[in-house]
Amino acid sequence: MPRKLRKKIGLPPGSVVFTGQQKVETVHLSYLEYNADICDETSLSNQTISSFHQPISEYTQWYDVRGLHDTELIKNIGQTFSIHPLVLEDIADPAQRPKYEEYETGIAILLKALKFDAHLSKVITEQVSIYIGNGFILSFQEDVTDLFVAIRTRLVNGKGQIRTKGADYLAYAIIDALMDHYFVVLDNIEEQIEVIERNILETKGNNNKGKIHQLKQEILIARKAIGPLREANSRFSKSDHPLIDSDTKKYIRDLYDHNVHLMDTVDTYRDMLTSLQELYLSEISFKMNQVMQVLTLITTIFVPLSFLAGLYGMNFEYIPELKFKYGYFVLLSVMFCMVVGLLIYFKKKDWF
Amino acid sequence: MPRKLRKKIGLPPGSVVFTGQQKVETVHLSYLEYNADICDETSLSNQTISSFHQPISEYTQWYDVRGLHDTELIKNIGQTFSIHPLVLEDIADPAQRPKYEEYETGIAILLKALKFDAHLSKVITEQVSIYIGNGFILSFQEDVTDLFVAIRTRLVNGKGQIRTKGADYLAYAIIDALMDHYFVVLDNIEEQIEVIERNILETKGNNNKGKIHQLKQEILIARKAIGPLREANSRFSKSDHPLIDSDTKKYIRDLYDHNVHLMDTVDTYRDMLTSLQELYLSEISFKMNQVMQVLTLITTIFVPLSFLAGLYGMNFEYIPELKFKYGYFVLLSVMFCMVVGLLIYFKKKDWF
Amino acid sequence: MPRKLRKKIGLPPGSVVFTGQQKVETVHLSYLEYNADICDETSLSNQTISSFHQPISEYTQWYDVRGLHDTELIKNIGQTFSIHPLVLEDIADPAQRPKYEEYETGIAILLKALKFDAHLSKVITEQVSIYIGNGFILSFQEDVTDLFVAIRTRLVNGKGQIRTKGADYLAYAIIDALMDHYFVVLDNIEEQIEVIERNILETKGNNNKGKIHQLKQEILIARKAIGPLREANSRFSKSDHPLIDSDTKKYIRDLYDHNVHLMDTVDTYRDMLTSLQELYLSEISFKMNQVMQVLTLITTIFVPLSFLAGLYGMNFEYIPELKFKYGYFVLLSVMFCMVVGLLIYFKKKDWF
Amino acid sequence: MPRKLRKKIGLPPGSVVFTGQQKVETVHLSYLEYNADICDETSLSNQTISSFHQPISEYTQWYDVRGLHDTELIKNIGQTFSIHPLVLEDIADPAQRPKYEEYETGIAILLKALKFDAHLSKVITEQVSIYIGNGFILSFQEDVTDLFVAIRTRLVNGKGQIRTKGADYLAYAIIDALMDHYFVVLDNIEEQIEVIERNILETKGNNNKGKIHQLKQEILIARKAIGPLREANSRFSKSDHPLIDSDTKKYIRDLYDHNVHLMDTVDTYRDMLTSLQELYLSEISFKMNQVMQVLTLITTIFVPLSFLAGLYGMNFEYIPELKFKYGYFVLLSVMFCMVVGLLIYFKKKDWF
Amino acid sequence: MPRKLRKKIGLPPGSVVFTGQQKVETVHLSYLEYNADICDETSLSNQTISSFHQPISEYTQWYDVRGLHDTELIKNIGQTFSIHPLVLEDIADPAQRPKYEEYETGIAILLKALKFDAHLSKVITEQVSIYIGNGFILSFQEDVTDLFVAIRTRLVNGKGQIRTKGADYLAYAIIDALMDHYFVVLDNIEEQIEVIERNILETKGNNNKGKIHQLKQEILIARKAIGPLREANSRFSKSDHPLIDSDTKKYIRDLYDHNVHLMDTVDTYRDMLTSLQELYLSEISFKMNQVMQVLTLITTIFVPLSFLAGLYGMNFEYIPELKFKYGYFVLLSVMFCMVVGLLIYFKKKDWF
Repeated sequence: MPRKLRKKIGLPPGSVVFTGQQKVETVHLSYLEYNADICDETSLSNQTISSFHQPISEYTQWYDVRGLHDTELIKNIGQTFSIHPLVLEDIADPAQRPKYEEYETGIAILLKALKFDAHLSKVITEQVSIYIGNGFILSFQEDVTDLFVAIRTRLVNGKGQIRTKGADYLAYAIIDALMDHYFVVLDNIEEQIEVIERNILETKGNNNKGKIHQLKQEILIARKAIGPLREANSRFSKSDHPLIDSDTKKYIRDLYDHNVHLMDTVDTYRDMLTSLQELYLSEISFKMNQVMQVLTLITTIFVPLSFLAGLYGMNFEYIPELKFKYGYFVLLSVMFCMVVGLLIYFKKKDWF
Repeated sequence: MPRKLRKKIGLPPGSVVFTGQQKVETVHLSYLEYNADICDETSLSNQTISSFHQPISEYTQWYDVRGLHDTELIKNIGQTFSIHPLVLEDIADPAQRPKYEEYETGIAILLKALKFDAHLSKVITEQVSIYIGNGFILSFQEDVTDLFVAIRTRLVNGKGQIRTKGADYLAYAIIDALMDHYFVVLDNIEEQIEVIERNILETKGNNNKGKIHQLKQEILIARKAIGPLREANSRFSKSDHPLIDSDTKKYIRDLYDHNVHLMDTVDTYRDMLTSLQELYLSEISFKMNQVMQVLTLITTIFVPLSFLAGLYGMNFEYIPELKFKYGYFVLLSVMFCMVVGLLIYFKKKDWF
Repeated sequence: MPRKLRKKIGLPPGSVVFTGQQKVETVHLSYLEYNADICDETSLSNQTISSFHQPISEYTQWYDVRGLHDTELIKNIGQTFSIHPLVLEDIADPAQRPKYEEYETGIAILLKALKFDAHLSKVITEQVSIYIGNGFILSFQEDVTDLFVAIRTRLVNGKGQIRTKGADYLAYAIIDALMDHYFVVLDNIEEQIEVIERNILETKGNNNKGKIHQLKQEILIARKAIGPLREANSRFSKSDHPLIDSDTKKYIRDLYDHNVHLMDTVDTYRDMLTSLQELYLSEISFKMNQVMQVLTLITTIFVPLSFLAGLYGMNFEYIPELKFKYGYFVLLSVMFCMVVGLLIYFKKKDWF
Repeated sequence: MPRKLRKKIGLPPGSVVFTGQQKVETVHLSYLEYNADICDETSLSNQTISSFHQPISEYTQWYDVRGLHDTELIKNIGQTFSIHPLVLEDIADPAQRPKYEEYETGIAILLKALKFDAHLSKVITEQVSIYIGNGFILSFQEDVTDLFVAIRTRLVNGKGQIRTKGADYLAYAIIDALMDHYFVVLDNIEEQIEVIERNILETKGNNNKGKIHQLKQEILIARKAIGPLREANSRFSKSDHPLIDSDTKKYIRDLYDHNVHLMDTVDTYRDMLTSLQELYLSEISFKMNQVMQVLTLITTIFVPLSFLAGLYGMNFEYIPELKFKYGYFVLLSVMFCMVVGLLIYFKKKDWF
Repeated sequence: MPRKLRKKIGLPPGSVVFTGQQKVETVHLSYLEYNADICDETSLSNQTISSFHQPISEYTQWYDVRGLHDTELIKNIGQTFSIHPLVLEDIADPAQRPKYEEYETGIAILLKALKFDAHLSKVITEQVSIYIGNGFILSFQEDVTDLFVAIRTRLVNGKGQIRTKGADYLAYAIIDALMDHYFVVLDNIEEQIEVIERNILETKGNNNKGKIHQLKQEILIARKAIGPLREANSRFSKSDHPLIDSDTKKYIRDLYDHNVHLMDTVDTYRDMLTSLQELYLSEISFKMNQVMQVLTLITTIFVPLSFLAGLYGMNFEYIPELKFKYGYFVLLSVMFCMVVGLLIYFKKKDWF
């Protein structure tokens, strides 16, 4: 939602203005330094500028900032690590499109973390910014909930090859972890699609059209997170920036493949929803046709009969048929024959 | 709207003919010269040709022309700054597609300023032309309202880095400011979409289909402003024209990114409106089906009953049932059973 | 319409066969030679082959042929100016797709002139072929009406730079003039779209669906003229053929820009018509729904009442209610209450 | 239709298996050798392998095989002219997609001959394979009817330049002749579209929806023949294979242009059919709306009247109105006023 | 279905985790070694790690693993043949998109085997992974049913050229065999489409809309197998990896051609289904319109008649018409005339 961009109208470019909703009260900051042997984590609930310092060559450093409203802090970080002002502007603006930007001293990657709120059937997005520098990495989250617990655990436990690799691999691992959640979100959406499909085919559920509509909107949101990331990952995997190891690129190429897969899946879901909508509409048309046939059947049978009954209910002084002894029974027989005849006719016309 | 192009049929190319609607009575002209230290603004409500002069190397000069109907003035400007006649033709024609053209002595950029008239739900466009020369910039607006107040203020106050940069950066700043307004327009459109969506889901509002239709048309207008500008910005950001500083290109690349974002958003809105339209149609189908079911229900229940009542309203001399003491009550019971039976049948068929 | 192509089935390629409808009785031929100083026009209503001769280096020569059925003439022209037989075949076949073909000795450009017959709401196309040779230009029109009056006048009057430029610029000027008419045609179509839109929104007009359908077909015709011309112009503007001056290319590039604009506009109109069609359908659905509600309302209110009236019109000997003194008034009251109750119920259901 | 491909499941690639329907009893074979001076044709109704022999440099040789079920013959041809097994496999499989394949010793082109069976409204395809070798050409048709009569006649009569050119030009001439028929097929389809359009606009014809559906399927078949051929012709025209003369390429380029034109036309027809379908649906919706309005009109007018009549047909002992002298006439007047009032109301609501 | 990917959330990349459904109890392993002279097959129902050994230069070796749940085995294979961990991860994950990946020591190809369950109208996919190494090939199937029986037979019987070619040709043969089955699946789908088409046109069958919907979903599944494989085959055919012989590339190019054909066919089927759906909807609309006309006809004829009958059934004391001797017959004649008049009117309006 670009709604909050209005705040910035008229400001010079590169202005670091927080344009999102403040999701945390105070900015949380955690710092982690590791190499193949050592891994030290420091969680600072109250950030202090002084905790940021120049990279040390023997460690890979990871600064994780949770909460974006403290623009002073972001500007300070920018100065400490000499980050381009346009990057800082993007970090502070959670409405950014996922992107990949290279600068001489570092690489900025912006992407979205996705969650699916099954209760509200809503896709919730959170912007994550990653800045890869020489020997360090900066990550920015909007919310206080840590999205990177699994990676932190892996680093501390020394599992896998993550400790033996540099900052570029750590960035890859973070993106990979976030993209794993995309699959979960798509799974949740697929489940909802299947529920709606079953409901329509069994003509159950009372607001299928609304649910299809909403799911379509949610897929649009997911698509806006996944589609531009594909481009970003493509450029990431083909980059020849000195900060990216050629060995890591194979992994990033794998990210890109997953991304293509995700995009395919999203588009498939969109097609499935469109197909469901058409099914729903033809279901309604079919039902209306059936109802219409019942209506016509009854009208066609009873209206002439009622007319005949009305005819002999008239008070004319001279209606000869009324005087016949068996007039009533003759009329009943005539009516019976009409009904049978019409039913046979409708049966032939395949109306019931 | 190319409607006014007819005026030009048969004229040689490069003819500077004003093809728009005259929006100002007299052309307003403002001149501003600045460098890192000094910033002088001169507002001339009555333009004089003599106020245009050759660029001075120590200043960056900005001529801003508001009102396009004085083609003599435009031709004079063209001669003073040796601008290609095709550029002058484009400047005087407010129906131009946004574009970016390079010439040996300068760069011409045409784009649209967008406003959203919330009252009429209309997107209003105004053509802005920017010509970057060596040490100077020319800007042309259709209307007397200055679209560049914020930039002028920034220049005068010396905020940001704008005073330390050249004409190319000023052009960038102008485009950036105009594009900021695009986001506002899209925000306004989004709000309207949300209002319509709520109206449809709550089946309120009395002309949702007309509103969807109009919003679609407005989005087409916005799209025609944003789409070609993306191309233009792409070429702008990749240009190797000597008038563009390599440092500025990073900023223009940022413009391009915003442009892609804008285009994505416009297309998303279009999809959302299409989805809303389908929702609206399935809502109507659903309602018609319900109404039809009520209709059929009542017909199915009462028509046979009325027939029976009509039957015993006949005046045949010999209808044995009429003589039975409790005939009336027996008939009432039969009718009651029919009603109950039909209701159970319909309940099963899930008709109400 | 490729209908007439059948005439050519089985003929060898390069056969110059006239496949269109003959629109003139005798071929009209006009000849014009000019340079910066002199401009001589010779209109020959009866062509003579001998009037074609080899180019003279000091003049630019323009032969204009109106009427294509005289294939002997075309073949003769082909021989005189050594034109490739495939070009001659294309010139004589008015069903050709707009195209740009380069040969060693010349350049052939085929395009359509568009007119809009407002009375029949029809787009009328006429094929125009232009052949640029060394120092001369050949143009072919189907009809006797001269499409190039404005250019001829400009040449004779010596306005603009046209007299100082060569054959390539003349070809550009012709295409530019024809494309100016495209804008007129699109304007006319836009007017018709607006009329239909107003009619639908005010539910006026008695054949809106037919008009939308026809306009869509006309837009398809315009699109078939404009779309391939864009490609042709793109190749024209990028050509490095020695017959095209590098200075002229800037103008051709401008043609291409107009072409892109035209194509955008055509596609926008198509989208607008599709949107109108959807509006029309939802308008009908909406109206049907309203009609249906009225129908259901009346049925629901009166059918039970009629049943009650019928009930007490029966001739059973013993119906106790009929004996009650105020039975009639009690029944009237009951009926009144039913009506009021149903109205309240429907009001709540938002049915009227 | 790939239906017959099942026969080949499990066979090694390059297996020459006939997968189509046998359309001739015995394979017909014709042989023709020509140069600028001489042209000898030998029609052999019973083929003999020995009739194939190595090319003679002074002639261009054309072998034409009609009937594909004799796979032994095809294999023998393959050996005699050393053709790659994948080509032979393709020749024997009439379900192949049109394609262009280059090999060191020759060029294989597969395409479809199209006919339109007006009676069944069906597009009938026949696969034609052409193999260009050094100094000879092989052509394969499925059916005994010769598709190349016109070319053969041209060769025998020595018309045009065909006798003076080589095998590549002959291949071009064959493809050109086949593509000429495409235009005929499209003409036929267009005629059918126009018939349907007229029927819908005049609401005539009893199965318009079925006809539109079928025509759409037929267009899909034509599209599958024309679309891939465009690619094939594109590669053909750009080929630098030594067997293709640079002079011939201009002609092939012309083929490609026709192909693009054909593809455009097919897509236009598809759009026209889609538009017709929408017209048909809105026609039905419009008609239903009208019918509904009549229904509602009658119901709205007569149901209340009937109720009133029923009311005074009740047998209550005390209904004061019945005793009034002019009660009947008062009631008639009331009814008349109601009818007039309703008609005025409906007139205003624009219901009839 | 990415449903099972959740298992892997939080694990480091390159983790070999089986994410599918276990389809076999114990992993089956078969080994085959061959050259032009010898072909030895060893089927091991209980795999032993030791059965894998380094390639021997004189044989081509083929290891076929059926069952993917034994991740230890896969890791061991990876170590023995030094396969990149990302490949192993992909092999163990049956939800992978078809892809082609090159590594220094080998080439990994992932694709889907397709089957069509005619009973359930379901497309069933099984992932097949092929790894081409130097002198050997590894293939992985999910299920115990051997998909490669035909190839194995061909190898053992020494038919065709397969024994004389290397591992790359074997990989090609496997993919070719799998793709042959795609044609069978598409044939089956086409048959189903034709059945539905016939049902709709003859208005038979009771759940055509559901069947169309399901077939559309199945086509989406087939499309997800075929589409990415096209890319993979394209890269495969253009590869310059030393493990691929240039001669084999011609065959792979043929694979690619088939793939394009398959993709075309799938898209054609999708269009056909969409067209069928529209046919179905217009069929229902048409039927509803007919039913509506019958309804309106009957209502229009009988409602006024009934009103008249009701009128003369009233009990007013003074209704002069009732006293007329032939009043009844006059009324009957009036009614008859009304019916005839209405029928003529409706006939003209083309309502029955």
